[in-house]
Amino acid sequence: MAKLWAKGYELDALVEEFSTGEDYLLDMALVEWDCAGSIAHASMLNKIGILSDAELEALSKRLKEIIKLHAKGEFTIRAADEDVHTAIENNLTDALGDIGKKLHTARSRNDQVILDLRLYMRDKLLETADAACAMAETLVDLAEKHKATPIVGRTHYQRAMPSSVGLWAGALAESLLDDIELIRAAYKMADQCPLGSAASYGVNLDIDRRHVSDKLGFAKVQNNVLYVNNSRGKIEGVILSALAQIMNDLSKLASDVILWSMPEFGYFKLPAEFCPGSSLMPQKRNPDPFELTRARASAVNAALINVLELVRPLPSGYHRDFQDTKKPLMTGLNQTLAALRVNALTVAGLEVDRERCIREFSGEVFATDRVMNLVKDGMPFRDAYREVANSPEATESADPVDNIMQKTHIGATGNLGLDLARERIDNERDWAAQARETWQAAISALLE
Amino acid sequence: MAKLWAKGYELDALVEEFSTGEDYLLDMALVEWDCAGSIAHASMLNKIGILSDAELEALSKRLKEIIKLHAKGEFTIRAADEDVHTAIENNLTDALGDIGKKLHTARSRNDQVILDLRLYMRDKLLETADAACAMAETLVDLAEKHKATPIVGRTHYQRAMPSSVGLWAGALAESLLDDIELIRAAYKMADQCPLGSAASYGVNLDIDRRHVSDKLGFAKVQNNVLYVNNSRGKIEGVILSALAQIMNDLSKLASDVILWSMPEFGYFKLPAEFCPGSSLMPQKRNPDPFELTRARASAVNAALINVLELVRPLPSGYHRDFQDTKKPLMTGLNQTLAALRVNALTVAGLEVDRERCIREFSGEVFATDRVMNLVKDGMPFRDAYREVANSPEATESADPVDNIMQKTHIGATGNLGLDLARERIDNERDWAAQARETWQAAISALLE
Amino acid sequence: MAKLWAKGYELDALVEEFSTGEDYLLDMALVEWDCAGSIAHASMLNKIGILSDAELEALSKRLKEIIKLHAKGEFTIRAADEDVHTAIENNLTDALGDIGKKLHTARSRNDQVILDLRLYMRDKLLETADAACAMAETLVDLAEKHKATPIVGRTHYQRAMPSSVGLWAGALAESLLDDIELIRAAYKMADQCPLGSAASYGVNLDIDRRHVSDKLGFAKVQNNVLYVNNSRGKIEGVILSALAQIMNDLSKLASDVILWSMPEFGYFKLPAEFCPGSSLMPQKRNPDPFELTRARASAVNAALINVLELVRPLPSGYHRDFQDTKKPLMTGLNQTLAALRVNALTVAGLEVDRERCIREFSGEVFATDRVMNLVKDGMPFRDAYREVANSPEATESADPVDNIMQKTHIGATGNLGLDLARERIDNERDWAAQARETWQAAISALLE
Amino acid sequence: MAKLWAKGYELDALVEEFSTGEDYLLDMALVEWDCAGSIAHASMLNKIGILSDAELEALSKRLKEIIKLHAKGEFTIRAADEDVHTAIENNLTDALGDIGKKLHTARSRNDQVILDLRLYMRDKLLETADAACAMAETLVDLAEKHKATPIVGRTHYQRAMPSSVGLWAGALAESLLDDIELIRAAYKMADQCPLGSAASYGVNLDIDRRHVSDKLGFAKVQNNVLYVNNSRGKIEGVILSALAQIMNDLSKLASDVILWSMPEFGYFKLPAEFCPGSSLMPQKRNPDPFELTRARASAVNAALINVLELVRPLPSGYHRDFQDTKKPLMTGLNQTLAALRVNALTVAGLEVDRERCIREFSGEVFATDRVMNLVKDGMPFRDAYREVANSPEATESADPVDNIMQKTHIGATGNLGLDLARERIDNERDWAAQARETWQAAISALLE
Repeated sequence: MAKLWAKGYELDALVEEFSTGEDYLLDMALVEWDCAGSIAHASMLNKIGILSDAELEALSKRLKEIIKLHAKGEFTIRAADEDVHTAIENNLTDALGDIGKKLHTARSRNDQVILDLRLYMRDKLLETADAACAMAETLVDLAEKHKATPIVGRTHYQRAMPSSVGLWAGALAESLLDDIELIRAAYKMADQCPLGSAASYGVNLDIDRRHVSDKLGFAKVQNNVLYVNNSRGKIEGVILSALAQIMNDLSKLASDVILWSMPEFGYFKLPAEFCPGSSLMPQKRNPDPFELTRARASAVNAALINVLELVRPLPSGYHRDFQDTKKPLMTGLNQTLAALRVNALTVAGLEVDRERCIREFSGEVFATDRVMNLVKDGMPFRDAYREVANSPEATESADPVDNIMQKTHIGATGNLGLDLARERIDNERDWAAQARETWQAAISALLE
Repeated sequence: MAKLWAKGYELDALVEEFSTGEDYLLDMALVEWDCAGSIAHASMLNKIGILSDAELEALSKRLKEIIKLHAKGEFTIRAADEDVHTAIENNLTDALGDIGKKLHTARSRNDQVILDLRLYMRDKLLETADAACAMAETLVDLAEKHKATPIVGRTHYQRAMPSSVGLWAGALAESLLDDIELIRAAYKMADQCPLGSAASYGVNLDIDRRHVSDKLGFAKVQNNVLYVNNSRGKIEGVILSALAQIMNDLSKLASDVILWSMPEFGYFKLPAEFCPGSSLMPQKRNPDPFELTRARASAVNAALINVLELVRPLPSGYHRDFQDTKKPLMTGLNQTLAALRVNALTVAGLEVDRERCIREFSGEVFATDRVMNLVKDGMPFRDAYREVANSPEATESADPVDNIMQKTHIGATGNLGLDLARERIDNERDWAAQARETWQAAISALLE
Repeated sequence: MAKLWAKGYELDALVEEFSTGEDYLLDMALVEWDCAGSIAHASMLNKIGILSDAELEALSKRLKEIIKLHAKGEFTIRAADEDVHTAIENNLTDALGDIGKKLHTARSRNDQVILDLRLYMRDKLLETADAACAMAETLVDLAEKHKATPIVGRTHYQRAMPSSVGLWAGALAESLLDDIELIRAAYKMADQCPLGSAASYGVNLDIDRRHVSDKLGFAKVQNNVLYVNNSRGKIEGVILSALAQIMNDLSKLASDVILWSMPEFGYFKLPAEFCPGSSLMPQKRNPDPFELTRARASAVNAALINVLELVRPLPSGYHRDFQDTKKPLMTGLNQTLAALRVNALTVAGLEVDRERCIREFSGEVFATDRVMNLVKDGMPFRDAYREVANSPEATESADPVDNIMQKTHIGATGNLGLDLARERIDNERDWAAQARETWQAAISALLE
Repeated sequence: MAKLWAKGYELDALVEEFSTGEDYLLDMALVEWDCAGSIAHASMLNKIGILSDAELEALSKRLKEIIKLHAKGEFTIRAADEDVHTAIENNLTDALGDIGKKLHTARSRNDQVILDLRLYMRDKLLETADAACAMAETLVDLAEKHKATPIVGRTHYQRAMPSSVGLWAGALAESLLDDIELIRAAYKMADQCPLGSAASYGVNLDIDRRHVSDKLGFAKVQNNVLYVNNSRGKIEGVILSALAQIMNDLSKLASDVILWSMPEFGYFKLPAEFCPGSSLMPQKRNPDPFELTRARASAVNAALINVLELVRPLPSGYHRDFQDTKKPLMTGLNQTLAALRVNALTVAGLEVDRERCIREFSGEVFATDRVMNLVKDGMPFRDAYREVANSPEATESADPVDNIMQKTHIGATGNLGLDLARERIDNERDWAAQARETWQAAISALLE
């Protein structure tokens, strides 16, 4: 297949394979975005007189056909194509001749792939926000249902003080909600139109960068053309930083569920349909989806350090190294989305054994409450602490349900503030819906 | 020294040394914040009747004295103290007897250290934002001064197209400005008052968490008490993610400066006072501060992965592992601040050899402009590309200054948009000033 | 497809997809090793009386057929199969009925996959050692050819002292040779037979672990059955540590080549067939394979931290998390092999512009030699250093070829010790050949 | 203080502080090694006629005095000294005048610091090997004592099959023994004498590199002078890779101990002297040293990625970036040594509650053994598996002690092979002792 840079020599086959890597496979996720970006670019070229109306029409038509072919699974990128941009330009030139050859005017694959990735990021980040909202809602529902289900709260893995399933689920929900703020910050950074940077240094044509940006529904043009290329990998790192926080939250959830579904605890039971078995041990039902959640959080963290370090030493301007930020980005987004969806399912299906939770309480768990009671009676805290430490056997067990419901200061077991969390979920959903609407209207207009 | 948890046994000396680690040294940065937090906590205990007015007064007085002693270098934390909290509580109890023993009512070192760190983070994040603004301004000034200083723009390290010192410096400034948005997002997450979480599960007292929060000028109470402890290490990771982006920007700048100050390029000269020499080679003047900037970016990235992975597998609630997130956080903040300040200084001092920059131009750098000129004359882009590729010798050199000034689309060399960058710097500075004012007023009232 | 652990319920489809991940694709690299391992296991089961001679014969025959089918591309693992072990056991049971059902006696997929991976590791590590030897030889050949080609040696990127292409290439060769020692250490750790660990705790049968080990040509049985499962991920980390060193060496090479093939240096020219072009800039020939080598070193480092951190917090025994160490391992091995092969090709093809290299010399490069000459005449070093520093213009340029050939202490430009390097290459090759022979004889006997 | 490279200008104070970093503190660990290296270097300079016998004598005498001052805490390096090399050269020149100025002949700080670090590495690696042997022995002793103490073996955290404290401790011991092989490989790489590389390119003097190497007891001269500087950071990475494996083993041990000392398990009790308490909750005894072991493993992994990535993109030759590999190396070595020592202590002190361990067994743990019994009676494995899966209630509990002692295949609970482990410990100790003897004899001769 003709390379876009073909000029009378062929690449060594081994070098070509090494250079292309998995690009031709990964780029299948960008076909639609590449076509949309090209239509917007063509529209701009038409506006500044490079393409006639008829040429724009022909290009748009063919690009929309490619989208349809792709939706039916009939468009593929071969290794020999190098990437999505080449596959599509060649397709256009085959179909339209000279018209196809004009489309690359004033752009480079450097800014074209950044554009494709920005469109992809916008879409996936909003999908992630939605999935995180759904997960947070699952947690708030669980917290609501089990706000009066006490469990032994732990620090250092040791029995500490009365807690509740509600407090636990609410804590995880609030953590996810804070993460969505990071998704928003990443989204804002991604929502800048890069096209017009070309190779990194702009072009000597009066291109209208704002026209392209508006056609694609971007919030703004990313101004400095060199910054556009410098930000390749950078914004990937910002996104992966946000995803890493989500995955770490899910990993914490997973660690809790794995622990508490051990028979020694028995707070939770996992429905069989979530638990693969052992090929050797017939009695086993294993918490595999939670273990893999934990493992995949580690993979997302590794993708982050990969991207951060890959770009760290690079001087300004485009480098081929950037190509290898595509896979960690896509891996991070796809793994996070999958983990959010699987965990929303498994957490919704968790069976809580309330009686067992209550049965696990013992006197020591109330030691700190006893200290505070002595304090209420006027004893200095540190003296009360030592008195209880010296007579642990005197700490009596109490009704754990009463105990947790009577702690009513802000954020305590008896005052979880779930309404606040629900309100935040609604706000985040509204934000994501509006953000999507903004550009979906533009994209629809472009592709209809 | 008496441990806060003392109850009739002694820790093994080796275990004690291992456990304390460098905490007693690192905590010197928290003395003032620990005292301020304790005064706010005491004020709340007074409000709910645990401390009398006289007790509150005595505690506040002594805590302010400790701040003064610390400012004079007369307060130290010994290894045997374990940490700042113990050193201060012991100091209070020595001075005030029973009154000192009351202060720890309704809190744990778990939430106390989180509070100290939040106060520390707020302060350091704003300092970072200010230093980043100063650095961005230095870059914009340089860009302004050298908007008409052309340099050979590169991609893949190869000579690509005309660029300028202005474009380069402007690109880095915009990158830093985007990073400040991440600092803002991190600040927002840090600006939640954790106190009242206690060990992780709240307390059976009617504490007034909002009172403490307001006294310390926080934007809000961090609601769920378990989330407070779950977010230890998490917010550290969010902050380090933002710092990593700043350091990566500075590392890119460093890579550029190191390259361009090689005699083979000679675009930049580094003033002697920034360049240590060699102990062996008398002729050497080395770009050490830039090399170390690059290296320290790697250290900040490593601090980030350290924190992310340290917390990833931990179940809910406090774990001692969290202690080891303190050093990476402080390292990250201090290294980033130092790097911003050093680079603001060295970049301001960079000598640009404009003549040399111009002299480095050659015909090939204008090849792409020639392609576009053929396109303007009506040739399809891909044909023009091939024509130029096939007759490289026909590309004539041009006046690089004219060339760069004539590229006037958004963000190109002739239209850098520096006013926009200056406006953003002003906005970020305003934000930081207002954010600081908000809590400084509260803290001043507390400490006066 | 029937799961090996099937017992009357079905996995949720989303959970199943999440759990299987890419295992069914990655496992295609293990088909032959899984079959070989199963034949060895069946032979042992026969020896201890679980399988009759006829059953062993039938199983061996079918397993060899599967290997042949796989070699022809006619054996596939479907997502529904979960993994290679299931796909093969089901195939055997379909073909052989009850006989197939007996094969899993006394083993678990836990130790089976470890066995497959050990066989895979052994093979790939020797392949890596061979490719590293080939790369080292390419470098030594280049060093030999260009031992009298002087280049300006650099420190801090600055011009420092006379060096040579020979010194440079020899340095990289020695570095790779040291890495092969790490490959050897990793190989030794991988060359332990894990089978018999079963789920992690052995079995209540008198299995003969040494029989299996000998049949597969292992150096020894990995003794403690729990250690077998604990070492999952661990040995992967050891291997990735060794690969990371190789990749870092290639990255250094790449950084040098990219720098020195810039037109400002011009020491090296890259043949066109190694250089993809730009889609926009017709004059460009880019060092893409070197840039991607650099980037992939970062990916291998990230794979290492992924594996190290994934296993770090896990308690003893098998966890599903281990599954996710397979991909980083395979990625690391495949990327390193590809990079070694591509670089052996591109480095062999490097064109050295000897005249340009010589032309780049200037007086300052000889400053340190001048210092030493003053020392030889009796001046204390530090005084000589200062004299030269104070009169840089007095340093005369010299013949760089003479200069480098006259430095003849051990390891200097005039005494590269390339014979020593060649001897080491021979030794490493002998080791790899012998190591391979040891087990290939065993495997051939098993599969013939 | 005079810089070694002083030539008429002063460094900016901020740049100087940034450049020196913590070097002047870290270098305190190198004083003795720097002096020893300098004596060996002086001896070589004497041999080749640069220093007279009297000069050598004077230098040696003063350098030995510095060692003694340092041992008494009376030698310090000030920030203004930059580093240990400068502090010592200045001390010599102050004391000896011109003689001191001659010592730096034919070397650079570049190879001098590498030499110091190699001497430091050799020492610390052998210390690490010894500490790892001691830890392994502690584990083997525990395994011996508790080979008949059954515990419920787990996979996926779930109850799986009978295991034993002996199997567990033996597994960890074998893992550490495999790690020592990595320490050996790292030691071999570090045991190469770098001196004579000078700035990276050797010198134009007939230095005798083997003389220096022999005087310091190195196994060999590191040949290629450029490789010497290229291996800065590289060998640090190799060492940290080995340390990471040790720390990961200790982290696994810690995770096990933390889990099994929860009251829900109660297998282990931690003596009070290992357990700090809570400042709030009087009943708590927390497994802090194990939690911090886990956390510090993460820090060592981060130090590794820091070093790997710091050096990855650097071209050949010395760069100032290398300075920042010193701290991660020292941190890694010191943290690993501390963790080995603390864990040897705490594990030796672990109290095993054998009755509780036995009491925790239940029928399901024997399910797999029941399957194998059916297999022994002739049922195909997969059918036996399904039969047991379908009638879990029919699995009878058995005597766990009998059960574990009757599993006698290699490496099973009834055949732990502890003698083999003890033999390996002896071998490793012998190796470390001999390695140390080799160079200690040389160093003693030098310093006496």
